[in-house]
Amino acid sequence: MKSQVGYRRCTSLSLRKINEKKPLVHCITNYVVANFTANGLLAIGASPVMADAIEEVTEMASIADSLLLNIGTLNDRTIASMQAAGQSANAHQVPIVLDPVGAGATEFRTRTTLALLEQLKVSLIRCNMGELAAIAGVNWHSKGVDSGSGELDVVQTAKTIARNYHCLVIVTGETDVLTDGVQVERITGGHDKITKVTGSGCLLSAICAAMLASSNDPFTDLANLLREYKQVSEWAYGPIGTLHENFLNHLERFAEGTE
Amino acid sequence: MKSQVGYRRCTSLSLRKINEKKPLVHCITNYVVANFTANGLLAIGASPVMADAIEEVTEMASIADSLLLNIGTLNDRTIASMQAAGQSANAHQVPIVLDPVGAGATEFRTRTTLALLEQLKVSLIRCNMGELAAIAGVNWHSKGVDSGSGELDVVQTAKTIARNYHCLVIVTGETDVLTDGVQVERITGGHDKITKVTGSGCLLSAICAAMLASSNDPFTDLANLLREYKQVSEWAYGPIGTLHENFLNHLERFAEGTE
Amino acid sequence: MKSQVGYRRCTSLSLRKINEKKPLVHCITNYVVANFTANGLLAIGASPVMADAIEEVTEMASIADSLLLNIGTLNDRTIASMQAAGQSANAHQVPIVLDPVGAGATEFRTRTTLALLEQLKVSLIRCNMGELAAIAGVNWHSKGVDSGSGELDVVQTAKTIARNYHCLVIVTGETDVLTDGVQVERITGGHDKITKVTGSGCLLSAICAAMLASSNDPFTDLANLLREYKQVSEWAYGPIGTLHENFLNHLERFAEGTE
Repeated sequence: MKSQVGYRRCTSLSLRKINEKKPLVHCITNYVVANFTANGLLAIGASPVMADAIEEVTEMASIADSLLLNIGTLNDRTIASMQAAGQSANAHQVPIVLDPVGAGATEFRTRTTLALLEQLKVSLIRCNMGELAAIAGVNWHSKGVDSGSGELDVVQTAKTIARNYHCLVIVTGETDVLTDGVQVERITGGHDKITKVTGSGCLLSAICAAMLASSNDPFTDLANLLREYKQVSEWAYGPIGTLHENFLNHLERFAEGTE
Repeated sequence: MKSQVGYRRCTSLSLRKINEKKPLVHCITNYVVANFTANGLLAIGASPVMADAIEEVTEMASIADSLLLNIGTLNDRTIASMQAAGQSANAHQVPIVLDPVGAGATEFRTRTTLALLEQLKVSLIRCNMGELAAIAGVNWHSKGVDSGSGELDVVQTAKTIARNYHCLVIVTGETDVLTDGVQVERITGGHDKITKVTGSGCLLSAICAAMLASSNDPFTDLANLLREYKQVSEWAYGPIGTLHENFLNHLERFAEGTE
Repeated sequence: MKSQVGYRRCTSLSLRKINEKKPLVHCITNYVVANFTANGLLAIGASPVMADAIEEVTEMASIADSLLLNIGTLNDRTIASMQAAGQSANAHQVPIVLDPVGAGATEFRTRTTLALLEQLKVSLIRCNMGELAAIAGVNWHSKGVDSGSGELDVVQTAKTIARNYHCLVIVTGETDVLTDGVQVERITGGHDKITKVTGSGCLLSAICAAMLASSNDPFTDLANLLREYKQVSEWAYGPIGTLHENFLNHLERFAEGTE
């Protein structure tokens, strides 16, 4: 279960900050990963709440510490709820993370992503390369909700998007990129087998939302968080069913500061 | 994996009764916990069926052995289905368990809970303290769908609710309370780490529905069931990912009478 | 974790073909099993994409390698999406697998199943005996979405259905039956404990969709796939929580050719 890095005491790290703050994260997310997202947030000490009815999202977002909008299984009902929740979050200074799952895969997802970015003040976009390309209007060959392939200057594109929308951008991949439009952090390491756990990217977006609710220095804390997430994916390496279990176990230990 | 209690043969216990009866439990529940609920019911020998379309819930509830209504990710479509299913269940003497997830967290959830309690004859309300407070109209500081904190005479409030709605009430927490409005059982023990498994409360509600379908003495059998559930949570203790696996394993063994 | 069969190198088997092709499988499925289905498809190297909004299913189905329609938690919105996705799949020669979950349990499910079979050219129906009986209009005592019990000549009925709808039919049970209306394969073995993992049948349907996208000889490849699935269920045998983990692990190893 362990890489060569082995156990170590971690000090002042990002997942621990979340575990100390225990933020309430309002998630409007897809039904494929809702359970894994909730369990992943619980593993690090955050409190997930999934609520997507238009009748209540305004209230729920207003009392949450952060809001996650994930369009993985979007439909007209939940898009309206995302807009209402987002407006409430903006009105109450609740930070929003947008995960534009599958932007570029269908025109509907691209259009919805761009509409949400126009209507709301988003604090962070967490996406893969294909989704970044879709937001930027760059040609790309996507494959469903997976990243796909194409030519893209990830760093420059991410910086442009960050400046256009006045937000942070995280593009995950073999190398993760974090930018605020000026500064850029590149994070390497990890193990790409984690992409075979459905929702590992969606969970990262949810954890980023928990991070924004727990941080006074989002850029630094998110960079550390990305390093920790890659570390967890490395430590969790194993057969696919075992990897799920390991991943939650290591997230928990990291958040508790016991590894 | 084992607490100091160790293995033991259990005789005439509640989970075993469910395993003998193998009831069909119609669940209208939230998409976060639907999979875990189905697997938990299967682990104890019950047959879950999830169906929430207005076109079929009347028929499905009429042939089920019990009905679970869980408002965890309610919306106008599923509320209408809960009402229709509940009316059908009432007409066919199929017992109903209501899990008012997040009542008190938003006005919409509180209102929906009270409406369902007015419209339907519910056999059991299974809730946490925050939800109990919401049903009773008591001030409480809730935190999303978690229990939250506040001052509340749990036993007295539960008894009042039980009498008002002519039903059983279970309030889970460090000490579980079961009441029919007159008798009260307090169940201690267990391990609160189980609350870090999303849906552990929702699954308990579903198992209570299976219990009502398998019992000639609901009050006694539910009290025993709560003891067994706490015991399982103790035995399952471990790192969070491992706890999930252990929990299903111990539920199964308990239901089969092999521990 | 191993049956007496032990490890062995498998050559030119069905799961390996999927792992080589890595097809994009568009799933319109139920929220109970969506996560398990996605993880199971990822375990064998396929790319799942869940999208059920009417605004995008036409586009998504047109770029997919196969389409799964599973009515486990159907409603009017998703039925319309299944029809639209199916028509797009037909127009683009994308094979369709229909999993008529719970047909026979309610009139709504039976009617929807028959309507989809009338409106669409389906390549494969993957069902249990109760669902087969419902499609054939045979009397049967179903139990929710489980198979139920009754008298049925499975092989003759499956052959008739296959001929009527010009498709392959797989009826799973203690003995699986595969037919194209003329040829019949019977597959025995496996372990029925796998039916206690919710969605094991639904996942099989999704894997059959991945198979159709990866095969030049569907009848032969599906017959082998059924053997492999039964083998995996045997190897995965264990306590219920452990069985989940084992099942994904063995699917992965089989697809990678390492067992």
